[in-house]
Amino acid sequence: MKARLTIDEYTSGILTGDRIVLGKAISLIESNLSTDEQQAIQLVERIIDKTGNSIRIGITGVPGVGKSTFIETFGKFVTGQGKKIAVLTVDPSSQLTKGSILGDKTRMDELSKNNRAFIRPTASGNVLGGVANKTREAILLCEAAGFDVIVVETVGVGQSEVAVKNMVDFFLLLMLAGAGDELQGIKKGIMEMADSVVISKADGDNMKHATEAQAEYQQALHLVPSSISGWSPKVLTCSSLTNTGIQEIWKMILKFKDHATKSGFFEQNRMQQNIAWFQEHFNHLLKNDFRRFPSIQAEFINLEKKIADQKISVQAAANELLSSYHRAIKNS
Amino acid sequence: MKARLTIDEYTSGILTGDRIVLGKAISLIESNLSTDEQQAIQLVERIIDKTGNSIRIGITGVPGVGKSTFIETFGKFVTGQGKKIAVLTVDPSSQLTKGSILGDKTRMDELSKNNRAFIRPTASGNVLGGVANKTREAILLCEAAGFDVIVVETVGVGQSEVAVKNMVDFFLLLMLAGAGDELQGIKKGIMEMADSVVISKADGDNMKHATEAQAEYQQALHLVPSSISGWSPKVLTCSSLTNTGIQEIWKMILKFKDHATKSGFFEQNRMQQNIAWFQEHFNHLLKNDFRRFPSIQAEFINLEKKIADQKISVQAAANELLSSYHRAIKNS
Repeated sequence: MKARLTIDEYTSGILTGDRIVLGKAISLIESNLSTDEQQAIQLVERIIDKTGNSIRIGITGVPGVGKSTFIETFGKFVTGQGKKIAVLTVDPSSQLTKGSILGDKTRMDELSKNNRAFIRPTASGNVLGGVANKTREAILLCEAAGFDVIVVETVGVGQSEVAVKNMVDFFLLLMLAGAGDELQGIKKGIMEMADSVVISKADGDNMKHATEAQAEYQQALHLVPSSISGWSPKVLTCSSLTNTGIQEIWKMILKFKDHATKSGFFEQNRMQQNIAWFQEHFNHLLKNDFRRFPSIQAEFINLEKKIADQKISVQAAANELLSSYHRAIKNS
Repeated sequence: MKARLTIDEYTSGILTGDRIVLGKAISLIESNLSTDEQQAIQLVERIIDKTGNSIRIGITGVPGVGKSTFIETFGKFVTGQGKKIAVLTVDPSSQLTKGSILGDKTRMDELSKNNRAFIRPTASGNVLGGVANKTREAILLCEAAGFDVIVVETVGVGQSEVAVKNMVDFFLLLMLAGAGDELQGIKKGIMEMADSVVISKADGDNMKHATEAQAEYQQALHLVPSSISGWSPKVLTCSSLTNTGIQEIWKMILKFKDHATKSGFFEQNRMQQNIAWFQEHFNHLLKNDFRRFPSIQAEFINLEKKIADQKISVQAAANELLSSYHRAIKNS
């Protein structure tokens, strides 16, 4: 099968739930080639009215907390309930090496062989905004392909969690019992975003720690300002090893969806997410618009040189470039 | 003294090293009022050729590692050497509460009374880029006011550290011995950015742990791709309690500056930072430019409504808005 398909081939493949075509379509979306970008926009337009019919679940937690194992166990349970699950990953790479934090592990081995599951470790990029944008589009494609549970996984590093929170319905934070106060400190902002904290590896000798941590986190969450959803975050425990707690987590998510649908929060939240996405996407277009004009590109380079030679301040240079951009648009 | 001064008053106050005026000037820079913004740009233009004559040191580490105590001890040492030190903070607030992570503690009590020191817990904002931009301008003001050591402190949460790394000459990561593997895992990307890792609280019972950690981190840093500065990151230990290791840290920083100045990296790096800042600042101007046009603002709101009512896709709406922006510029 060739690397790139026609729009019709992408569309019909996705709408019939063909996972290979879905994978290729996500590659198209991830491409930075401008012809691919054009096609990706068309593709999203084509499938847009088949989207939205899923529960979008964000999952985060520090490396070592057992996210992959949890998602594998959770995915097996959910597919066992007759659901189709898609797993996407937002992975802002290590700044200098550009290496993937997640890519080097064999992950979710069993789930990946399940034909009700689709696992896609999204290629990472150095611009988080860009990655987030592409992940949002990938969610839409998965929905159009009939996946009714979409998991968006992220590593526990600040900004990426905010990005994921802003594209999901339900945000789940995986934590380890007894991982130390420092770790909890750094997670404070993340905790506030969570609809649920799940304490993983609650088995064997760890059981006591996990139960204690559950009480502690539940207490901590009482200090968090209550969410506009009206939902009180729940703290649960689970073990992928002994396969316990997974059903309760799924029940909780269904309960949340029911609660949020009845209160109108579910639709309201998605609407607000779309509006925020629109603003971001417009900024993205704007940021790249001036590259259409060779004269502006040339001036950009010229101003960079002046800044390097300390002949102009950063602020003055930026103002000058904006004026030139206006002139270029007027003359176009 | 009134809240706002004239440009002449700000300029002369800063150039004579008046810390009260410097504080007010930083408030001006932090203001989002458009009249203040205009004045802030003018002010930076006025003092720009008195800037640059400092060593800019970024300091990061998770909450609990003892950053404030370290900076206090370091600051006392450096001022004892006849230097003037300014301490700025980049503090991306907790996403939901907008509360300051740092603001609730009484911090650097002794240093704040030292007349060779200036401590400014920069007001935080919800847009990291904006905060970073203002911190960069604050650095310039401090330099113009004669501070020769500028410390930019950040909390250990991902993106803010990248922002700080990109505005300093030397980046120092404070770590605790024995804080667990998870913590080290999450810090991998940060480690790669560090010019030095300093293990704090190396005293009493902790001494052995600290020395072991020193060896371990030094080993880990050998795995990190070597920096383009040609500098090999050093791992040191220190104790603010017993006041040990501080002199060695200062010596190391001076050695780095000497090394980087001779190799040309010091100037090269600052030049590249300015160019990156220019690009960011231009994007910032661009992002706000369309707000000049009432018609575009109205269309923006109209498109948001259409998105909420699911009458248009996010991508199509953004494209439409860009076209309208072009038309508005042409007609202006």
